Amino acid sequence: MRKVFETVVGLNPNFSFRGKQQTRIETFSDAVFALAITLLVLSSTIPETFEDLWASMRDVIPFAICVALIIVIWYQHYIFFLKYGLQDKVTILLNTILLFVLLVYVYPLKFLARFLSEIYGGIFGIIETDLSRFGEYSHQNLKLLMVNYGLGAFAIFLVFSLMYWRAYKMKSLLDLNSYEIFDTKSSIIANLLMCSVPLLSLIITLIDPWGNFRTTILSGFLYFLYVPIMIVFGRITSKKSRRLLQD
Amino acid sequence: MRKVFETVVGLNPNFSFRGKQQTRIETFSDAVFALAITLLVLSSTIPETFEDLWASMRDVIPFAICVALIIVIWYQHYIFFLKYGLQDKVTILLNTILLFVLLVYVYPLKFLARFLSEIYGGIFGIIETDLSRFGEYSHQNLKLLMVNYGLGAFAIFLVFSLMYWRAYKMKSLLDLNSYEIFDTKSSIIANLLMCSVPLLSLIITLIDPWGNFRTTILSGFLYFLYVPIMIVFGRITSKKSRRLLQD
Amino acid sequence: MRKVFETVVGLNPNFSFRGKQQTRIETFSDAVFALAITLLVLSSTIPETFEDLWASMRDVIPFAICVALIIVIWYQHYIFFLKYGLQDKVTILLNTILLFVLLVYVYPLKFLARFLSEIYGGIFGIIETDLSRFGEYSHQNLKLLMVNYGLGAFAIFLVFSLMYWRAYKMKSLLDLNSYEIFDTKSSIIANLLMCSVPLLSLIITLIDPWGNFRTTILSGFLYFLYVPIMIVFGRITSKKSRRLLQD
Amino acid sequence: MRKVFETVVGLNPNFSFRGKQQTRIETFSDAVFALAITLLVLSSTIPETFEDLWASMRDVIPFAICVALIIVIWYQHYIFFLKYGLQDKVTILLNTILLFVLLVYVYPLKFLARFLSEIYGGIFGIIETDLSRFGEYSHQNLKLLMVNYGLGAFAIFLVFSLMYWRAYKMKSLLDLNSYEIFDTKSSIIANLLMCSVPLLSLIITLIDPWGNFRTTILSGFLYFLYVPIMIVFGRITSKKSRRLLQD
Repeated sequence: MRKVFETVVGLNPNFSFRGKQQTRIETFSDAVFALAITLLVLSSTIPETFEDLWASMRDVIPFAICVALIIVIWYQHYIFFLKYGLQDKVTILLNTILLFVLLVYVYPLKFLARFLSEIYGGIFGIIETDLSRFGEYSHQNLKLLMVNYGLGAFAIFLVFSLMYWRAYKMKSLLDLNSYEIFDTKSSIIANLLMCSVPLLSLIITLIDPWGNFRTTILSGFLYFLYVPIMIVFGRITSKKSRRLLQD
Repeated sequence: MRKVFETVVGLNPNFSFRGKQQTRIETFSDAVFALAITLLVLSSTIPETFEDLWASMRDVIPFAICVALIIVIWYQHYIFFLKYGLQDKVTILLNTILLFVLLVYVYPLKFLARFLSEIYGGIFGIIETDLSRFGEYSHQNLKLLMVNYGLGAFAIFLVFSLMYWRAYKMKSLLDLNSYEIFDTKSSIIANLLMCSVPLLSLIITLIDPWGNFRTTILSGFLYFLYVPIMIVFGRITSKKSRRLLQD
Repeated sequence: MRKVFETVVGLNPNFSFRGKQQTRIETFSDAVFALAITLLVLSSTIPETFEDLWASMRDVIPFAICVALIIVIWYQHYIFFLKYGLQDKVTILLNTILLFVLLVYVYPLKFLARFLSEIYGGIFGIIETDLSRFGEYSHQNLKLLMVNYGLGAFAIFLVFSLMYWRAYKMKSLLDLNSYEIFDTKSSIIANLLMCSVPLLSLIITLIDPWGNFRTTILSGFLYFLYVPIMIVFGRITSKKSRRLLQD
Repeated sequence: MRKVFETVVGLNPNFSFRGKQQTRIETFSDAVFALAITLLVLSSTIPETFEDLWASMRDVIPFAICVALIIVIWYQHYIFFLKYGLQDKVTILLNTILLFVLLVYVYPLKFLARFLSEIYGGIFGIIETDLSRFGEYSHQNLKLLMVNYGLGAFAIFLVFSLMYWRAYKMKSLLDLNSYEIFDTKSSIIANLLMCSVPLLSLIITLIDPWGNFRTTILSGFLYFLYVPIMIVFGRITSKKSRRLLQD
């Protein structure tokens, strides 16, 4: 049954899960995650007329982007607690900060997703872009936007790296074997790497080399660095972990 | 105790459940389903006067229709995870899409239920129909309405069929016996059949043979096809499964 | 450990619980109950000024009445599923109706509690009664109020009696002993008795013997019948159950 | 495994937990706590323009204060039920009162945190203080504010002390050893001490020795007494518990 459980969860069966029994921290966190995605979608006005109904359908793409991002964070949270089952005060404190940052960024994320959908909708000719509804669309505001989301993304992944660092600190008590220790260290580094991209974007935005939209466009596109970083890092770690498992 | 559990759940005792232990995906999904039915009912304005109170009671029938539909989807979700207990990334992705479609359609469903209740309330002489509060009641808007809900229903049942297809793909790992494999394949086909009705309705609406209300009335009544389809399909599968169990 | 569990739950240790393992129906229902009491309190406007803050505190008593009523219903729900652990389609259908009636009555309950608090607050000289904010305060509206809440209370306890009736029907499958069968039958009758009071109040209101406020005052005070009914019924059943346990 | 569980929970491994299996009271309470912190953050208006977005970011500090306070209460709730696993009627009643007080104070807490942030933001020169948006900022209103929050804090910790008193009353049934009895008695006293500070603040506010802002400033700063009280009390109890464990 052990092999089936690990595999049906799609996780690496070489890691023995300490957190199969759901704890209250996870039940509480699941309720907050569920509230976040639900209120993101259902905090809009209720369509009373046909016109309202079609207007509300315009938000489907932005909502899809936001829900996907939140679920990615939920999945990281789910894997962490499945692996270690930690419930100590430090983990609860870090978990609270994670949930707080998530909640603070639900509505700003909705704003950003609508804003980007309006821009890309126009670029791909799907809709007629009307950015005026977002208020004063200035370079200063775009810079603040990038700083705002850079801080949010940075905080989320920093907290995850601290949570994995916490698990690493309790490695003897959790009785982690050498493979599991390596896996934990890789998670710390992976999340620190995920932190570094928004940090870089933040720095570029604050330096603001061109003093105009080019800065914010660059700091926006920097987020595509996630793809190569994760591919390269994934290759390095999987090579090492295969060697560890053979030993 | 095994026989009692299967039977108290009202499920076919020949299927051994892999998902008796609740997982976080189910806890998270239950919170979203609970939010969906609650916000559907409680997102209306709070009655401050007697007049508000009676006006709010007018929504009871539309709400009952919506809550019943959402619970039918919840029950399908409940049975799927009880049967297979899957928690891998693909299942989580499909589950996220299912919850997202559900949330996007909560308010539109409320609109549709109110709109249909207004029409049928008038036909049965219960209330004086006043469709003006729904905005411009044109053939074009009704067509968009049918397309909108056709897509929603199509998406929900397509995701369920993909989830059962996922379970079918993991049949050796889940150690499904021949009866359970047959049951899983039947579920894939059942959900594909459930997909086909809204698809048919969508196509009729887009072709719009009459160019007036007759098209939307026909595409609406097509949904009654569910009854004969499910009865016939149910008979076929139960005959085959009895034969399988005897063998 | 068995004795401790029953006793820490404060339940009659002679009844062996079939539902100790939480099911998804209970997790889903708990989320709806939690949403009901939370939205009842938090659906008010957010205090932005000191004046708003004091105005919001005026609602504490009405909210306390509503939350107490909802928790009484939650406790009944909790005991039922703890006793029988049923998860079949009929139980899920009855549970859905129960949750639906609960949700439909959250805001009307808030209205009624505010209305009664305004009246009794004035009678006891705590506040200056101002019923004008509730709209047209006529005999006709009060009658509708009594009919409205009579139907709600009647529906809640009727569903509970049907749920216990369902458990009674599955007594052999649930392997209930004679004491447990007696306990289940008592629960059916108790809930039917709880149904009878709102039914009586409804009938009196519809007959409306005096054609003025005296009718609604009488149909309101009929609810105090709950106390003697439950005391007398409690005595009868505990006598019989003691005899059953001795045999 | 026992030692690991206690330690990963960060609790004193000398206390054997009776409540490892999550009960419905905890699932229900977790949903209410999750709703409290989510609605606290997400009950604000949704930012539609850049200006709204920056205005909404101004609330981050006040929200952080409120979420931290609510999580401290959640942690106390979590530890209580983990230790004793009680589910009897008295515990459910006390738990309901706790959740009710929590819900009633979510919005007032949001008001207080915004108010204090405005004042301290001005003192530390971070923002330009504008207290006019809070309505009439008089000595009378500040007194009512201190009374209001004094009652809330008093009620929360009084309920916790009653819950621990309930566990103490069931010590033989829960089979508590001498160390666990001492730990339970300490929790009663600790919560009564936590009650005493808001009580003292309340009394000072009602006596109102200076008849001006000095009274409310004093009654506000009294809350800093929590720190020395908890340090001294912590030292006394840990000395006694070490001696008990040695015996």
